Amino acid sequence: MRTDVAIIGSGPAGLLLGHLLRQAGIGAVILERRTRDYVEGRIRAGVLETVTTGLMRDLGLAEGLDEYGLPHSGFLFADGERLIRIDVEELTGKQVTVYGQTEVTKDLIAAAPDRGLDIVWDAEDVALHDIDGDAPWLRFVKDGADHRLDCRFVAGCDGFHGPSRQAVPDSASKDYERVYPFGWLGILADVPPCNHELIYANHGNGFALASMRSPSRSRYYIQVPLDEQLEDWPDDRLWDELELRLGPAAGKIVRGPAIEKSIAPLRSYIFEPMRHGRLFLAGDAAHIVPPTGAKGLNLAASDIAYLSRALIAHFKDGEDSRLERYASDALSRVWKASRFSWYLTTLMHRFPEASAFDRKMQLAELDYIASSDAARRAIAENYVGLPL
Amino acid sequence: MRTDVAIIGSGPAGLLLGHLLRQAGIGAVILERRTRDYVEGRIRAGVLETVTTGLMRDLGLAEGLDEYGLPHSGFLFADGERLIRIDVEELTGKQVTVYGQTEVTKDLIAAAPDRGLDIVWDAEDVALHDIDGDAPWLRFVKDGADHRLDCRFVAGCDGFHGPSRQAVPDSASKDYERVYPFGWLGILADVPPCNHELIYANHGNGFALASMRSPSRSRYYIQVPLDEQLEDWPDDRLWDELELRLGPAAGKIVRGPAIEKSIAPLRSYIFEPMRHGRLFLAGDAAHIVPPTGAKGLNLAASDIAYLSRALIAHFKDGEDSRLERYASDALSRVWKASRFSWYLTTLMHRFPEASAFDRKMQLAELDYIASSDAARRAIAENYVGLPL
Repeated sequence: MRTDVAIIGSGPAGLLLGHLLRQAGIGAVILERRTRDYVEGRIRAGVLETVTTGLMRDLGLAEGLDEYGLPHSGFLFADGERLIRIDVEELTGKQVTVYGQTEVTKDLIAAAPDRGLDIVWDAEDVALHDIDGDAPWLRFVKDGADHRLDCRFVAGCDGFHGPSRQAVPDSASKDYERVYPFGWLGILADVPPCNHELIYANHGNGFALASMRSPSRSRYYIQVPLDEQLEDWPDDRLWDELELRLGPAAGKIVRGPAIEKSIAPLRSYIFEPMRHGRLFLAGDAAHIVPPTGAKGLNLAASDIAYLSRALIAHFKDGEDSRLERYASDALSRVWKASRFSWYLTTLMHRFPEASAFDRKMQLAELDYIASSDAARRAIAENYVGLPL
Repeated sequence: MRTDVAIIGSGPAGLLLGHLLRQAGIGAVILERRTRDYVEGRIRAGVLETVTTGLMRDLGLAEGLDEYGLPHSGFLFADGERLIRIDVEELTGKQVTVYGQTEVTKDLIAAAPDRGLDIVWDAEDVALHDIDGDAPWLRFVKDGADHRLDCRFVAGCDGFHGPSRQAVPDSASKDYERVYPFGWLGILADVPPCNHELIYANHGNGFALASMRSPSRSRYYIQVPLDEQLEDWPDDRLWDELELRLGPAAGKIVRGPAIEKSIAPLRSYIFEPMRHGRLFLAGDAAHIVPPTGAKGLNLAASDIAYLSRALIAHFKDGEDSRLERYASDALSRVWKASRFSWYLTTLMHRFPEASAFDRKMQLAELDYIASSDAARRAIAENYVGLPL
């Protein structure tokens, strides 16, 4: 097999890139380790910046987004006593859209055949070869047989655990990491959300988040210790704790059976550089943010905005300056979004080592945010996404 | 002796309060443990917010300020590579004024006799009595003899180590503290400053600050470990380090012999409540901020703005609602200014325990500040002082 750009991974990064390249008439093949059912079933993020919805629109694939996406013009902080609204639209002129990553993925997969975007499912043991040279290629196993995919460029969109980042020699890279001393226990349930906007709560017991996927499907989270066991959190205990942490101002929390319930750790991770030879990393393959502020999917989309333009300039105009700049362009935005995710995580969670003074600093900062247009504007502009 | 308000301490808080009360025809006596020469010789802060200059103007004591004060419309961050300017005046419509706390103190002391403000120097062993009742009084020793000062209210303006805060029972109070793992080594020299605006630098070696007291007197600081010895820092070593940390963009650093050189620890401290019975705490007696951002003197002034209005309302109008609100009014601003001082300290210093990720977060934040009007506005509004 031979193509222009071999894409590893069929998450949002790989799918967006594949579609953008195909739209420009450039060859692209996606290798995905998992089955289509698995990929379409993963429950992930749900708040889209305009950089992400913009790419869906550019592709003419915004039908689901327009029908089911919920435009949000603001969100709320809760500090145990009150709600502090960040009026994102008034402060920035932009909105975010609540639309599940799962739906984005389904929409992009469904449109692939019509657009000539090949996705190879169950492509196991993907290995990268000759990424330092002019003719990189991938080896993979499908249905027990070895296959080879030759290409001009490799896009590593294979997430934190994929082989792409591992293919960059240690001597040519550096990484930065913060592992947070807690996780998020999440519950998905077919009940109406307590509030029509997201609520980020900093309660004495720890962080809580009220989110949603649709007017009839809610997504809630609470901060839990890293060693917490799922079986210690029957639905009722979790609903009780959500009510307590979100507080009465949050609105009525309608209870229902969990469709999904899981504990995820929180991590900040950045790998430099995002390019090595003919390999370009994008999304979780290069960086992980904690979910606070919903930057993960949107950073993957902004990586792809830079990378798709760069590859199109190469193939269509023979112009390589954008490819040369990809790592620094993408990383500049990645660092800023990582800063915001870290900041919001630090502001809203209880840290085991925090002193009474540290706690008071969190509350003083929330009080300052409540009182300052400039502080709310700074948060809002990060929430909707900094300019590319 | 008998007066309306007995003030302990002749720092800026005590002196401002004494003058404001006298201006309103209310009796006030200041007890000061030190000599006048000692008080007038202390080298302290030098950047005044409008809350502070406004009080000097209200008192008609702004002659020195108008002649020698330097209005500053902005300041600079340095990140080792570039300068990032915070155009405070454009962002907030306000300026700050560089004028030494030492000069403020001298101006207020010089005007005291004409305004009937008694200052008792060398008043030792001040002890507070009956602050829970209607007739508090102070005992002190002067020239070896015991004295008693009866009053209606006591203002504790006697700094972090004074007796006022100690007079509040532990059972009625709570305090919050952060001791930073470094100090500031400062040098005062009669040389022109390297830049006409202040420069806060975050260099790989640690923090540095270029400040000034006048066009011909410079004040510089560098972050040093807490156990550093002054004798390990001869002038030349200090000038070399300042040049390195401030970087070439800061401008030419003119060297000169140190008039004063000292190492000060950095601390955040807040005591609650700021009132107990008839005792009202103000300034360093109730809270300490690290010097980053120059909030210490200005917080003392804002405490006095609240307290003077409250006492005048009591004596002139028989109205006690402001007195009742003093602790909460003052503390609300104290917590926000403490947050800003802590934030700026955290952003600009090297912490021994910081990881490579933490360092990158500092640089990403500086990069974000450089790119965002909202971020610069939030910093500027705190720098000039939040509204009372």
